[in-house]
Amino acid sequence: MYDYDLLVLGSGPSGQKAAIAASKLGRRVGIVDRRDMIGGVCINTGTVPSKTLREAVVYLTGFSQRDMYGSNYRVKDEITVSDLAARTQHVITRQTDVIRNQLTRNKITMITGTGRFADAHTVWIDSGSGRESKVSADKIIIAAGTRPARPDSVDFDDRTIVDSDGVINLQAVPRSMVVVGAGVIGMEYASMFAALGTKVTVVERRDQMLDFVDDEIVESLKYHLRDLSVTFRFGEEVAAVERHQTAALCILKSGKKIVADTVMYSAGRQGQTDDLALEAAGLAADRRGRIEVDANYRTAVDNIYAVGDVIGFPALASTSMEQGRLAAHHACGEPAREMHQLQPIGIYTIPEISFVGATEDELTEGSTPFEVGIARYRELARGQIVGDSYGMLKLLVAPGDGKLLGVHVFGTGATEIVHIGQAVMGCGGTVDYLVDAVFNYPTLSEAYKVAALDAANKMRNITRIDG
Amino acid sequence: MYDYDLLVLGSGPSGQKAAIAASKLGRRVGIVDRRDMIGGVCINTGTVPSKTLREAVVYLTGFSQRDMYGSNYRVKDEITVSDLAARTQHVITRQTDVIRNQLTRNKITMITGTGRFADAHTVWIDSGSGRESKVSADKIIIAAGTRPARPDSVDFDDRTIVDSDGVINLQAVPRSMVVVGAGVIGMEYASMFAALGTKVTVVERRDQMLDFVDDEIVESLKYHLRDLSVTFRFGEEVAAVERHQTAALCILKSGKKIVADTVMYSAGRQGQTDDLALEAAGLAADRRGRIEVDANYRTAVDNIYAVGDVIGFPALASTSMEQGRLAAHHACGEPAREMHQLQPIGIYTIPEISFVGATEDELTEGSTPFEVGIARYRELARGQIVGDSYGMLKLLVAPGDGKLLGVHVFGTGATEIVHIGQAVMGCGGTVDYLVDAVFNYPTLSEAYKVAALDAANKMRNITRIDG
Repeated sequence: MYDYDLLVLGSGPSGQKAAIAASKLGRRVGIVDRRDMIGGVCINTGTVPSKTLREAVVYLTGFSQRDMYGSNYRVKDEITVSDLAARTQHVITRQTDVIRNQLTRNKITMITGTGRFADAHTVWIDSGSGRESKVSADKIIIAAGTRPARPDSVDFDDRTIVDSDGVINLQAVPRSMVVVGAGVIGMEYASMFAALGTKVTVVERRDQMLDFVDDEIVESLKYHLRDLSVTFRFGEEVAAVERHQTAALCILKSGKKIVADTVMYSAGRQGQTDDLALEAAGLAADRRGRIEVDANYRTAVDNIYAVGDVIGFPALASTSMEQGRLAAHHACGEPAREMHQLQPIGIYTIPEISFVGATEDELTEGSTPFEVGIARYRELARGQIVGDSYGMLKLLVAPGDGKLLGVHVFGTGATEIVHIGQAVMGCGGTVDYLVDAVFNYPTLSEAYKVAALDAANKMRNITRIDG
Repeated sequence: MYDYDLLVLGSGPSGQKAAIAASKLGRRVGIVDRRDMIGGVCINTGTVPSKTLREAVVYLTGFSQRDMYGSNYRVKDEITVSDLAARTQHVITRQTDVIRNQLTRNKITMITGTGRFADAHTVWIDSGSGRESKVSADKIIIAAGTRPARPDSVDFDDRTIVDSDGVINLQAVPRSMVVVGAGVIGMEYASMFAALGTKVTVVERRDQMLDFVDDEIVESLKYHLRDLSVTFRFGEEVAAVERHQTAALCILKSGKKIVADTVMYSAGRQGQTDDLALEAAGLAADRRGRIEVDANYRTAVDNIYAVGDVIGFPALASTSMEQGRLAAHHACGEPAREMHQLQPIGIYTIPEISFVGATEDELTEGSTPFEVGIARYRELARGQIVGDSYGMLKLLVAPGDGKLLGVHVFGTGATEIVHIGQAVMGCGGTVDYLVDAVFNYPTLSEAYKVAALDAANKMRNITRIDG
């Protein structure tokens, strides 16, 4: 008899949901994590602090209100890091409590420490006090997460040269900043600091950024960030980042040099598998520390699963949670459905971006015809009320059956209202549903109706001419 | 040949949408309204100013941020009416421009003045300059709207004793206020002023309020308003409201007297049909000024339709717009679908309320069994981030087929996220869609997944015992 039916290594989003799902199925579940890491990177250094910081920035800078009260309107003239940090710490503490309560309520045993495989059913727990204990389990789920990759050419000091986990601990709002890497995390922080008044330079090796996002929206984002004094250096590589007395020096391969108070190096993440002794369980990670899994999130070893960031793309809290739940159901022999095809992407830049389904480029490449319906926030009463004059919603509609092929939103509430289109897509609805639907007035959701009418009118005009 | 294919009397939400829909079908359309009333009551004295005021109140009082920064946190210590009025006027001006542009872009003729029927196809236009002109149209749509009812027992002066259209013009934020009538408009203003620090007393003839809303949510609202020092007097009638030197005196039939800086009398609305000379067209209004229509919004006279508040319930901008569009389609002989059964209700109290579908009481009365799934915002990361510790989402699910019977939301973003559940209901989805769906993290929309899992777990437990 094993100590547990299921042991989960890591208490981030995927680990939590795996543990709770198994517990709800009546299993005895243990979850292993360090005392200071309940909730994982998501709660402690990643998603939650970054989104809390963003909310504080938007509120305290009066960003969304500038259109109303003039461009110099701010809640506070001088925003300090402690204004921002207080809020972040508050949310982290509360959210950790919430997770702890959820685990306790579901009678999940919290095991404090770090795990290391002894064999495929046994894990050594190092509680940090020097003593190790052993726990055994029928099934094990690895939800160990990732940490920022730190190349040797960069002289990290966690003060002037930081990685994406360290940026939330900055001691002051920098006057200038170089963000290396125009991925999601890089662009989220670039836009936050730009909103705070920091002069931001973004350096990106490739010729473009966020290439999985609708072109028009990426261009809108670049336009808005440039308007906040952001400089983009695409197709440029960083040769070295040096730490000097009062600032950091970023040297590009093209010979350009950029001085900045702070450099944030955001160049990918590494699976946290080095200390797991995977080989003792008969497993191995790839060179980025990642573990391979099948469609049911099972590793090469039958009773061991892996979920969340440690298995790689898409490495979003939202999908990770679902992976955890599905892996737990599979491990418990519960009939599990596959993960829903429709996974929204949410990018918390300022303004924010969200989409679900295909982009115009993808459809055009696949020779799938589509009609576009667009709504602009500034034409909606709610857009005026919240002072969002730039937001837009774009529907991509199949001309034949009116099915939605993609929903792309830029602006206030994008990450929330994208789920309306997602529900229509996921439940088999068409653009007609949106044309006929009644939406609360005044809301941003009305954009769906406006965009649907736009698409429907275009399709009707084509039908009239084309027969 | 008539001057117009379609003439619309009134440019509020229903009138606009009627005009635009007919124009998109290639018809020659004219729309009649006073110069200062483009957009109708909705834009000028009703929905838009009230929702703008609400947004300003929430922002300037730091209401949603108090949980973060402590209960005394405010953006401004002293909020003046001019802070609020500036914003409101800004939005009204812009929104009026938007409507004017939309009408122009759609080649709709704007006819400035007030209309009066000469016969069923002809309308006198009084432009206010003393001269009257005549226009004729094949079809006419009456979208004349309503105005607040003003009983004789109340001594309105538009300064201390105001109706719900006059409240936005108050010269100062009152220290104390009596709100007579606990309908939607009354409760929206009661919560705004309570948030601003005004001591509010609500007097309502009936024993309860908002009886079409979920009980639990109405009680939560009352709880939160009492927490903001609101006093409720249910089952009490106002005998008279007197104007005195420095204040108003509100005398209840029970003998109680309430002194307040301001009294807002919010006791229903009256159709604006008195000056339309309906009888010249062969029509008549009821004693509340309302016009009766059939399922296609056609009046007793074949070529004349009526839409919006002037036809009565539900008198919401959202439904009125749809009525306008449907009436125009019918008038133009376009195959029109019936209005969607699913009409969300949005109530912009603080906190806000929205729902779609049935309430628990309605289902129980009809002996329709249901299971409840609940999510609380404080358990969601986004709830913590925005400082909403009270919000909740409730799903009512049919145990047999898992269809959603009702979606009830209380708290931040309620009027937006209700549309997700509405889309699931409208497109034939079930609770399983929500259980399986991936939601952006961190969002309030995640509440759907939490509530769906809650309901699904309960249903599974029942199935296990009950077979």
